[in-house]
Amino acid sequence: MPSTWVPLPTDSGYGIDNLPYGVFTTDHEPDRPRVGVAIGDFVLDAGAAAHAVGATPEVSAVLDAPSLTGLMAAGRPTWRGVRAAITTWLTDPGLRASVEPHLIPRRDVVLRLPFEPADYVDFYASEHHATNLGRIFRPGTEPLSPNWKHLPIGYHGRAGTVVVSHTPIVRPSGQRKAPTDAVPSFGPTRRLDIEAEVGFVVGAGSELGTPVGLGDFADHVFGVCLLNDWSARDIQAWEYVPLGPFLGKSFATSVSPWIVPLEALDAARVAPPARDVEPLPYLDDRAAEPWGLDLSMEVRLNGHVISRPPFASMYWTAAQQLAHMTVNGASLRPGDLFASGTVSGPEVGERGALIEITWNGENPLKLPDGSSRTYLEDGDEVTITATAPGPNGTRLGFGEVSGRIVAAR
Amino acid sequence: MPSTWVPLPTDSGYGIDNLPYGVFTTDHEPDRPRVGVAIGDFVLDAGAAAHAVGATPEVSAVLDAPSLTGLMAAGRPTWRGVRAAITTWLTDPGLRASVEPHLIPRRDVVLRLPFEPADYVDFYASEHHATNLGRIFRPGTEPLSPNWKHLPIGYHGRAGTVVVSHTPIVRPSGQRKAPTDAVPSFGPTRRLDIEAEVGFVVGAGSELGTPVGLGDFADHVFGVCLLNDWSARDIQAWEYVPLGPFLGKSFATSVSPWIVPLEALDAARVAPPARDVEPLPYLDDRAAEPWGLDLSMEVRLNGHVISRPPFASMYWTAAQQLAHMTVNGASLRPGDLFASGTVSGPEVGERGALIEITWNGENPLKLPDGSSRTYLEDGDEVTITATAPGPNGTRLGFGEVSGRIVAAR
Repeated sequence: MPSTWVPLPTDSGYGIDNLPYGVFTTDHEPDRPRVGVAIGDFVLDAGAAAHAVGATPEVSAVLDAPSLTGLMAAGRPTWRGVRAAITTWLTDPGLRASVEPHLIPRRDVVLRLPFEPADYVDFYASEHHATNLGRIFRPGTEPLSPNWKHLPIGYHGRAGTVVVSHTPIVRPSGQRKAPTDAVPSFGPTRRLDIEAEVGFVVGAGSELGTPVGLGDFADHVFGVCLLNDWSARDIQAWEYVPLGPFLGKSFATSVSPWIVPLEALDAARVAPPARDVEPLPYLDDRAAEPWGLDLSMEVRLNGHVISRPPFASMYWTAAQQLAHMTVNGASLRPGDLFASGTVSGPEVGERGALIEITWNGENPLKLPDGSSRTYLEDGDEVTITATAPGPNGTRLGFGEVSGRIVAAR
Repeated sequence: MPSTWVPLPTDSGYGIDNLPYGVFTTDHEPDRPRVGVAIGDFVLDAGAAAHAVGATPEVSAVLDAPSLTGLMAAGRPTWRGVRAAITTWLTDPGLRASVEPHLIPRRDVVLRLPFEPADYVDFYASEHHATNLGRIFRPGTEPLSPNWKHLPIGYHGRAGTVVVSHTPIVRPSGQRKAPTDAVPSFGPTRRLDIEAEVGFVVGAGSELGTPVGLGDFADHVFGVCLLNDWSARDIQAWEYVPLGPFLGKSFATSVSPWIVPLEALDAARVAPPARDVEPLPYLDDRAAEPWGLDLSMEVRLNGHVISRPPFASMYWTAAQQLAHMTVNGASLRPGDLFASGTVSGPEVGERGALIEITWNGENPLKLPDGSSRTYLEDGDEVTITATAPGPNGTRLGFGEVSGRIVAAR
């Protein structure tokens, strides 16, 4: 990969090998969302740059747009072509004079929700997380349900409440019932939690009735973001039998504003953990290079690192999830979002949710500021970050997904 | 209500008191979807009629459109104004000459999906259905989960696979495992079922963080349709613990093409059944006129009536469902769809799903043509219709939602 003429801070996660996409506005034009690409400490106004360099109509059309929808829907050949073009703009010294005026300092832009979520599916792919939650929610029974190693368990969430990083999270109210209570009570959740996850954003859709096989993953998935699946554990515990989580999750799901192109993640691909159950053929990824991804995640609570979940430990890969989600003929649309499920490794310091870290509040978490937490308090801010291996020893940054809790209304 | 100058067949469900909205194309202009209103055996080209009578710009703007989104999002005062205007066009003899050229015989139009589904939520509000399914899926335990009478159980479904009536339904494949099997197998579902339901379509959205109370139901819900929540029972039974139904439902959900305005249903409002658990205040509809609806539904399999589910028997009303769905601050968007759950009365002939009618196949259903069914066979066609009381002893028709099973691919 050639080097960029854009000045890069040391260890910038936004080097020339990353080029994540987002949508931004400026204070000057708050009603004009535009497609941006992160490079160093700048955001490239991609549509303006396309015009400045005289890009092809195809490239200009998808970049000079108020959203990423056109680029996402255009499919993989276009994704490749656009990425190659932007790489040239940011590396060719002869184009610097044309392109540089369209670099905006990142601190001067407002990052918006980077795509319009169509359907949102949340999976449950960490064996450590599923085991921990089984032990907490269903003590005395086998922690993993009998189906867990045969298929990637998932459910649909609420697409309309997917929000971009830094959107305030209002503490939700609802019905809660402790096992010792005779009847449920109504009020603000007392067990507000996080789930540190990785989100996969579908670009190219598919036809109703046509499954998307394991090998077609990269033709449909546009890119990857970070995701916090905020969860109200007391609401969830009371409501979720028999039809699954609903209001305990549907109040908000935060995503990071930068979508890292799948194409940027070749160096991050790793083998998933050994599976101890023979997969059915449509989920069998042993023949092809699989889609485990070696993302290093960090979860901070009020600035203190409380966990470092290892994404490479996930039992089910995103390619298996996509194959499963469509094997019944369900169609895909541009903007479909599916999330990995909480990322938890085998160690306490690798767990992606407070319910696991504090074992449902039994072991409060001590913070360096002297306070402790079982679940989130009003005013708490949670930030999830991640990096992944890039080419030639570089690291790719995923930016962050962050949210602060505000009191129930 | 004045009478219309449009000739009405005897017992037309599409009289002047109904005026349901839809979206249609013609063979002549297959790529120009337009807003239509059903009246007698005709579809009124609403946008063209608005221009012909010189309607106000507000009315013309929402009717002369390729979708109902503008009208739906405009809110209740606009819904009332537009309905009053259309009523005048179809009743005032002085307007007949202007309006009549814009009536198209219903047989000459193609009815499209009437709205773009945003989020889709499916409830589980029939006590008879939930009890039957509990007995079948979880024999030997209490059929209703402890939460069932405290809150309307629901879950998010797949909005992207909501299809309009008469879309062919491809038999889905997936993982199935009978209790007697050691491991799951993959293949076409052997237990393809229907769920006869009523759908509620949200028009006016709401802000994130702001619940929609029981009393605000009619400010947000634009209208009502029929819905068939196709279900693959073997896939569902294997996958649904612990996070709920997923691929057993997500392959297709069919809706009727006509949205009956909520305003047309005043005469259909009835008290829901007596509840034997005290509702929490946000669900307590005893003080206000409640939203039970006396819809008479019919389910036909290959033309034979197999069930007459009574919608008035539903334990939870749509207003309670909307209040519950938003009590955690979840926002609404125009196009959000929520469904009642399978409508089943206390009698076998009132059950809205084959799993209940045949008791999971134990008691095959005999059809008048000499054949019998446990679940659906390829080529079977299921049609759900409904009527409701209108003003002055009339009946309002909901049209139908129909679908034919085609073999697995």
